[in-house]
Amino acid sequence: MNEAARPMSRSRSIMTELVFPTDTNHHGTMFGGTLMKDIDKISAISAMRHCGRPVVTASTDSLDFLAPIRLGEAVELEAFVTWTHRSSMEVYVVVRSENLFSGDRRVTCTAFSTFVAVDENGRPVPVPPVIPENDAERKLYDSAPERYEQRKKRRSQRYSSPE
Amino acid sequence: MNEAARPMSRSRSIMTELVFPTDTNHHGTMFGGTLMKDIDKISAISAMRHCGRPVVTASTDSLDFLAPIRLGEAVELEAFVTWTHRSSMEVYVVVRSENLFSGDRRVTCTAFSTFVAVDENGRPVPVPPVIPENDAERKLYDSAPERYEQRKKRRSQRYSSPE
Amino acid sequence: MNEAARPMSRSRSIMTELVFPTDTNHHGTMFGGTLMKDIDKISAISAMRHCGRPVVTASTDSLDFLAPIRLGEAVELEAFVTWTHRSSMEVYVVVRSENLFSGDRRVTCTAFSTFVAVDENGRPVPVPPVIPENDAERKLYDSAPERYEQRKKRRSQRYSSPE
Amino acid sequence: MNEAARPMSRSRSIMTELVFPTDTNHHGTMFGGTLMKDIDKISAISAMRHCGRPVVTASTDSLDFLAPIRLGEAVELEAFVTWTHRSSMEVYVVVRSENLFSGDRRVTCTAFSTFVAVDENGRPVPVPPVIPENDAERKLYDSAPERYEQRKKRRSQRYSSPE
Amino acid sequence: MNEAARPMSRSRSIMTELVFPTDTNHHGTMFGGTLMKDIDKISAISAMRHCGRPVVTASTDSLDFLAPIRLGEAVELEAFVTWTHRSSMEVYVVVRSENLFSGDRRVTCTAFSTFVAVDENGRPVPVPPVIPENDAERKLYDSAPERYEQRKKRRSQRYSSPE
Amino acid sequence: MNEAARPMSRSRSIMTELVFPTDTNHHGTMFGGTLMKDIDKISAISAMRHCGRPVVTASTDSLDFLAPIRLGEAVELEAFVTWTHRSSMEVYVVVRSENLFSGDRRVTCTAFSTFVAVDENGRPVPVPPVIPENDAERKLYDSAPERYEQRKKRRSQRYSSPE
Ligand SMILES: CC(C)(COP(=O)(O)OP(=O)(O)OC[C@H]1O[C@@H](n2cnc3c(N)ncnc32)[C@H](O)[C@@H]1OP(=O)(O)O)[C@@H](O)C(=O)NCCC(=O)NCCS
Ligand SMILES: CC(C)(COP(=O)(O)OP(=O)(O)OC[C@H]1O[C@@H](n2cnc3c(N)ncnc32)[C@H](O)[C@@H]1OP(=O)(O)O)[C@@H](O)C(=O)NCCC(=O)NCCS
Ligand SMILES: CC(C)(COP(=O)(O)OP(=O)(O)OC[C@H]1O[C@@H](n2cnc3c(N)ncnc32)[C@H](O)[C@@H]1OP(=O)(O)O)[C@@H](O)C(=O)NCCC(=O)NCCS
Ligand SMILES: CC(C)(COP(=O)(O)OP(=O)(O)OC[C@H]1O[C@@H](n2cnc3c(N)ncnc32)[C@H](O)[C@@H]1OP(=O)(O)O)[C@@H](O)C(=O)NCCC(=O)NCCS
Repeated sequence: MNEAARPMSRSRSIMTELVFPTDTNHHGTMFGGTLMKDIDKISAISAMRHCGRPVVTASTDSLDFLAPIRLGEAVELEAFVTWTHRSSMEVYVVVRSENLFSGDRRVTCTAFSTFVAVDENGRPVPVPPVIPENDAERKLYDSAPERYEQRKKRRSQRYSSPE
Repeated sequence: MNEAARPMSRSRSIMTELVFPTDTNHHGTMFGGTLMKDIDKISAISAMRHCGRPVVTASTDSLDFLAPIRLGEAVELEAFVTWTHRSSMEVYVVVRSENLFSGDRRVTCTAFSTFVAVDENGRPVPVPPVIPENDAERKLYDSAPERYEQRKKRRSQRYSSPE
Repeated sequence: MNEAARPMSRSRSIMTELVFPTDTNHHGTMFGGTLMKDIDKISAISAMRHCGRPVVTASTDSLDFLAPIRLGEAVELEAFVTWTHRSSMEVYVVVRSENLFSGDRRVTCTAFSTFVAVDENGRPVPVPPVIPENDAERKLYDSAPERYEQRKKRRSQRYSSPE
Repeated sequence: MNEAARPMSRSRSIMTELVFPTDTNHHGTMFGGTLMKDIDKISAISAMRHCGRPVVTASTDSLDFLAPIRLGEAVELEAFVTWTHRSSMEVYVVVRSENLFSGDRRVTCTAFSTFVAVDENGRPVPVPPVIPENDAERKLYDSAPERYEQRKKRRSQRYSSPE
Repeated sequence: MNEAARPMSRSRSIMTELVFPTDTNHHGTMFGGTLMKDIDKISAISAMRHCGRPVVTASTDSLDFLAPIRLGEAVELEAFVTWTHRSSMEVYVVVRSENLFSGDRRVTCTAFSTFVAVDENGRPVPVPPVIPENDAERKLYDSAPERYEQRKKRRSQRYSSPE
Repeated sequence: MNEAARPMSRSRSIMTELVFPTDTNHHGTMFGGTLMKDIDKISAISAMRHCGRPVVTASTDSLDFLAPIRLGEAVELEAFVTWTHRSSMEVYVVVRSENLFSGDRRVTCTAFSTFVAVDENGRPVPVPPVIPENDAERKLYDSAPERYEQRKKRRSQRYSSPE
């Protein structure tokens, strides 16, 4: 892996969307699934910006939806690569919903996903390292190896169980 | 909670989809986010079938994508409610992808989500209990309280951390 | 046609969908065209599951929409191959709409379509026979040759007429 | 029914669409279901133009797909009301596909559908009569009562049968 | 450019659409962007019908939206090629919205766009001339060279300015 | 108009999108219309962020597409309010396309649109002023009144002409 390391800010990617009727249930609040799809899309863009290669989603850590998002609100997703291992990258997304009329904003969801860079045959290939440049970035970077180990453990347990 | 308990089979819900170009990346493999959206949709249908009320997604446990799903394959999602607490329901989804030409099928992803039944103002309301009726169902049912506790613990930890 | 015959149950395919605002008219009832599109999709999956080849829609027999389907209801489509000739397969779909809050379910539409298995150049190729395994299946199977003849007659008449 | 009769040309409605990757299968030919959805949409517009009221699809007569439509081609649908009874209107659609590079055009499908004008509660309400103004229109108009009777007969037979 | 000139009527293309909830804002009026997308689509079909080649949008002249278009209305777009230069074609679109219940119709927007015919590598190639055949067509044709010059001037000015 | 003025940066809105097969033509380059729709969406979000009210698109100034955008590239749109009059706001959008594999980025399009804040009945209402805070912002702000006058002139000329 002799590719030059890249600053975390390079992969920073933002997507702002309006919540449409099609994205909402009876009570006019957004479906979780629509948000998950957007989280995956902006994370994938962020991972490709970092490594300059096609990527696939390997996993998404548990997602908690803290508050409903309403029809007509804006949703802003911000993603960046927080850590890399050999071929995998951890991407962090923070979702803020915003009432465009009152200006109220709040964090609605945060998520860590893992993306893997692949070659033409879908086989993992190495990715360049990422460099944190301020305290908030370093905190995410430094805590990543522990999350990496937890995911490994989780996988090994899961597929001995149901089904 | 004096509503009559319901058998697990009542909430069983199936969705079969073809993978379209729009759902795939450069190499013709499905985006994780499209699958997550479908997982949320069929889980919500399953939860509403169980409780007969509007529901919201409270959380989705970690998702691992075990193998790529390709353009032109079929994806079959099967969901059912495995456990209930007061207002929350745990829904289990198993995703099988199928090569329609060779007939090969494999489990591509499994997922547990939590849905909460809500009233008109989005406030949690009680749901009827669920009754497992065979060994596989009982195994999922019996292991649910432990997963419930883990989620509670996870939530209490998470939002003291990043951002 | 020396490919082994396959049981009818092998092609059984189910799709469950929620009715969204985008699928409905002013009065909040589903457009017929949205349902027709879903009928064609699940029928095509069913036909490919039977024959393991790409297929094209040759025709859809008359469709009657018996009752409106409302916003927020679930629609469940069940399809299977009921009969085959040389290169064509008859697929039967039954559509049930379901009020998720009251639990009411009713048959909203039934449909027979014909799909043809094709090679890379879109030319018809043989398909394996299908084997009915219970009385309901046998009833559909035994009545199919008559429907096949009616379609043939219909085609020969139609395109001498308007336009 | 004292509303003034309207000429057939008044309801004439045209929709031209490009065939996109999302509308096509592996071999780059259009799905039947996508075309059915467009047939229903332009027919509904035509019926509403005639009667000035909300309408629902009551039925679609048999559809035969005469030739594949390819990625990148244009599809032109032309619809008009050919006949009315009390609350129902017969709509005729002719579908022409067009290779934009060679200029080749051909009729790919023709279809008759029945739409019913409804009030706020979905109950049938009378529609104004339609007046054919040339020979081609008169031919469609004059042959309509027979098709109306066939549909009635078909309905009475069908729903005594399977399922 | 020795390809035969073609009458303006040959490129005339019509698209009729219903306005859906997904296309509208809070107050049930159509988003400008949805209309722009349709304007571009029908213009591209018109340009390809004229020249029989792939085309790209080079520019769209200023668009003014004269009146809101409401949920449930129909929108009819009519496009045709009004003039050609070497590789470029000017396409004119007139948009009429129609209240299907009252029958009221009005012009909602008119637009001129420029499309360029391209080869496999996206390089401009010559297009056949267009022939106006009545007074309205001739007026559009005769005023086109002046609009062509204004666009050239506009381009040369614009990209020396902001950003 | 006694609402407090707001800094230009407050309305800054970013949308990053991947180019999908559905957004592209035969040669795999993006349709102009898809980009126009995104330009309108992010501009509307920006205008609502500034004024805290529903808005409608009044007009879009001439758009030039400088270079094709390819399948698989990312497109980043950045919008902000550059000037306000009584009820109208000028929004500037710059579109950058980015090859995620080479990292190449370029400005593909820039656009000025005008949005108007409206009340429940679609009638214009006053908006707060905007304050530029650096040289680039001031340049856009200071040149806006001239563009405003040009639009006024354009409108008065246009609708005496074709059709
Ligand atoms: C889910 C929600 C209704 C819970 O509301 P609350 O005020 O936290 O209510 P409570 O603390 O009383 O919890 C109610 C139930 O939800 C469960 N719950 C809350 N958050 C949860 C989470 N992240 N994961 C799993 N279960 C959760 C609780 O365990 C409790 O279950 P129980 O009644 O069966 O014991 C609320 O957080 C919410 O509306 N979230 C947004 C949901 C949404 O819109 N999702 C899509 C976003 S795009
Ligand atoms: C169509 C519908 C309104 C008819 O209601 P109904 O109670 O059967 O009413 P009636 O028996 O009085 O029939 C009314 C008219 O519909 C016609 N009609 C009813 N079913 C029909 C069918 N399957 N095919 C053709 N015409 C039909 C009748 O001939 C009659 O026409 P006329 O008034 O011109 O003589 C009703 O069946 C319905 O709502 N169906 C669902 C429509 C829908 O939602 N479609 C989309 C489903 S996704
Ligand atoms: C269906 C199609 C392949 C048939 O090709 P063909 O040259 O007519 O072939 P044949 O006459 O040999 O018929 C092949 C089979 O199709 C059946 N068939 C043809 N047209 C049919 C129709 N309208 N309805 C039902 N079956 C039909 C024949 O009965 C025959 O069946 P069998 O082999 O089991 O006896 C051809 O018409 C076609 O490609 N149509 C367009 C399909 C399509 O693209 N649909 C979507 C349009 S948007
Ligand atoms: C349009 C395009 C092919 C022109 O290429 P070019 O290298 O500038 O070619 P030229 O300078 O030789 O111009 C070719 C023609 O385009 C016209 N043209 C170029 N830019 C134009 C503009 N912004 N507005 C109107 N016409 C324009 C020229 O006038 C010339 O017309 P003519 O041959 O009839 O005299 C090129 O700019 C391009 O590919 N743009 C992107 C198109 C696109 O992908 N649109 C969708 C974006 S999402």
